[in-house]
Amino acid sequence: MRIAILGGDGFIGWPTTLHFSNLGHDVAIVDNLSRRWIDAELGVQSLTPMDSIQERVRVWRQASGHSLGFEHIDVAQDYERFKAWLGAWRPDAVVHFAEQRAAPYSMKSDHHKTYTVNNNVNATHNLLNALVAVDLDAHVIHLGTMGVYGYTTAGASIPEGYLSVDVTLDDGSKMPREILYPPDAGSIYHMTKCLDQLLFQFYAKNDRLRITDLHQGIVWGTHTDQTRRHPQLINRFDYDGDYGTVLNRFLIQAALHHPLTVHGTGGQSRAFIHIQDSVRCVEIALRNPPERGERTKIFNQMTEVHRVRDLANLVAELTGAEVAHVPSPRQEAAENDLAVQNRQFLALGLDPIKLQDGLLAELVDIARKFIHRVDRSRIPSTSAWTRDIAAKLVTRMEEMQVVRNGSR
Amino acid sequence: MRIAILGGDGFIGWPTTLHFSNLGHDVAIVDNLSRRWIDAELGVQSLTPMDSIQERVRVWRQASGHSLGFEHIDVAQDYERFKAWLGAWRPDAVVHFAEQRAAPYSMKSDHHKTYTVNNNVNATHNLLNALVAVDLDAHVIHLGTMGVYGYTTAGASIPEGYLSVDVTLDDGSKMPREILYPPDAGSIYHMTKCLDQLLFQFYAKNDRLRITDLHQGIVWGTHTDQTRRHPQLINRFDYDGDYGTVLNRFLIQAALHHPLTVHGTGGQSRAFIHIQDSVRCVEIALRNPPERGERTKIFNQMTEVHRVRDLANLVAELTGAEVAHVPSPRQEAAENDLAVQNRQFLALGLDPIKLQDGLLAELVDIARKFIHRVDRSRIPSTSAWTRDIAAKLVTRMEEMQVVRNGSR
Repeated sequence: MRIAILGGDGFIGWPTTLHFSNLGHDVAIVDNLSRRWIDAELGVQSLTPMDSIQERVRVWRQASGHSLGFEHIDVAQDYERFKAWLGAWRPDAVVHFAEQRAAPYSMKSDHHKTYTVNNNVNATHNLLNALVAVDLDAHVIHLGTMGVYGYTTAGASIPEGYLSVDVTLDDGSKMPREILYPPDAGSIYHMTKCLDQLLFQFYAKNDRLRITDLHQGIVWGTHTDQTRRHPQLINRFDYDGDYGTVLNRFLIQAALHHPLTVHGTGGQSRAFIHIQDSVRCVEIALRNPPERGERTKIFNQMTEVHRVRDLANLVAELTGAEVAHVPSPRQEAAENDLAVQNRQFLALGLDPIKLQDGLLAELVDIARKFIHRVDRSRIPSTSAWTRDIAAKLVTRMEEMQVVRNGSR
Repeated sequence: MRIAILGGDGFIGWPTTLHFSNLGHDVAIVDNLSRRWIDAELGVQSLTPMDSIQERVRVWRQASGHSLGFEHIDVAQDYERFKAWLGAWRPDAVVHFAEQRAAPYSMKSDHHKTYTVNNNVNATHNLLNALVAVDLDAHVIHLGTMGVYGYTTAGASIPEGYLSVDVTLDDGSKMPREILYPPDAGSIYHMTKCLDQLLFQFYAKNDRLRITDLHQGIVWGTHTDQTRRHPQLINRFDYDGDYGTVLNRFLIQAALHHPLTVHGTGGQSRAFIHIQDSVRCVEIALRNPPERGERTKIFNQMTEVHRVRDLANLVAELTGAEVAHVPSPRQEAAENDLAVQNRQFLALGLDPIKLQDGLLAELVDIARKFIHRVDRSRIPSTSAWTRDIAAKLVTRMEEMQVVRNGSR
């Protein structure tokens, strides 16, 4: 099968690329290398050393015998070039990771909000628009987020994309309807994924595009079977306050013998999935496309739910680290319950890697191994959701000396 | 009050500007003049002669004694200049019409889809983003569309923006929830207004912006009390296949003694409102802003519902014109029922102008008066929703000689 991976230079894009290449598919990466530019902008880098994409492609060919294509195209900004490439190469499937994916980065300033909206909406729309324009029936697999589910109802687990409701008619009787789950995003980044859903809804209906949307939890872990095959194939490990997920930052803090900084009470429940499972899920989605004319197929791509404070305790037990509470930069409920349905992937054969089982390897193989590369001033999350929160946050962090004075 | 009108050079923007100026408000138009550029692109023009915005501003000052500001800024493309202006002028309210507003134009080609998404999403997001960035609590009044309500349920009238539903909990019990009406757009243009709703939802929640969204029906009529005050203050009258609404095209066909071309069976039900009422509704919305921290306030801005074939018959009775059926360029149900709630505006004092009462004046004062300016080849709607529909449409239209061969 011929598969295009938009954003194939990124954290999930790269192992997905290797996974499909390893299975014998003909894979091409399309990427504007924005993740590398953002590293440069923020003055941060992956804890694991990142070679250029061209070098990684070369190493993969040596290690596996498989060639990868690489097209340096900005899908969001350069519609015409992307369309020309798509119409010429004509992939059977397009996996779409070409979006800015960090909530804190999206809230950093008005410039970052504009960038995130513009980049993400146009990347998704340009893909759908180009498929119709070149008359290509390729299966689109998109990385969404659990964060599109905002309106959680206590006592109701989150279904996979669609919600069954009863609507009251004018005569007072009730009629069942199934609707796209009502979105209520918690950040500009999450909002762009809600916008994506409406783009998919329209193009699936009007142009009968075949689209799968994967609402993913927080991904943890670094290695997949393929990234382990050579040191230069290693995946990114982001630990900074914008791109580092909560678990990565705990692991780094533990490796530094620094207290684990928990936002607020740490009562926020989050869904998680290991990078290896994430890649397998994309493969399962690829093998189970929707029919032409069918609505967008939506999976919840997550395997377990944890509260942030429980996660901190887990890392603390493993390492002896202490736990410290700091103000949250986010505007959200301090405590929330989260129950998520993920029956579809389990029914299709996913056998999840558990956090409890994989954490130690992540600590030893990644965090401790590369800890000499860390810039500890970059660990705290300082991108605040509002001006008021920002003011409180800076004061408190400076008191705690979590942020060194003047380092922002 | 200091009021900014984004898109104040357009069809509703202009009479809204004059209406608020006439009430003694300090009004500034912000416009990129895109509607004039699109006229140039399509090779069409308003049936009524349009002077430049600068000239219209000058004539209004002579006629009324009131000055108007005019800022030539592209809100979608030039965030920084818009933000600087907004932060300096600091309006109390911003009325936002700065979007591409024709469904057929949005479906014309992949270029027009990209333009519409890019322009509309960025215009709305740049406004919200800039208000937060310059810390301005101005009331945002946005022109939405009845077209965001896609999932209509037979037997249930369309509520004003929010739908009450029952959600089933995991234990089988039901819980009532009020959700944003599930959107299901019929065109790229309509979809952008669905995206806008999610932008509003986020900024109302995260930044407590005060936002009113007006889901408007098809606007008919040309004059308001102010546009009547001088020939050079006259409003646009679009009759072309992209920007002309169904009623305008019927009036022009009748004035030309040409059959009225009805798409399909003409069984599509549409909501309508007169331009004078539209302007009054914006004023009512201005006087009734939401509280800070309140969710987006949504009104249905329409006063009556008609099927397209009934509208054709109404014009036919008035003028003796014949009715002809042509294939529809749109992908939609041939027949639909539409019942819309509009209690809020009626409760706040709106006394609607009825189509039945105003049609004759529109025919005499506008269509017949300016008919010498018409280009009859521009009347048919030829922007098709899919490639298949386009093929059928061209064949049938050429058979009927509605489109002259070669004129496309």
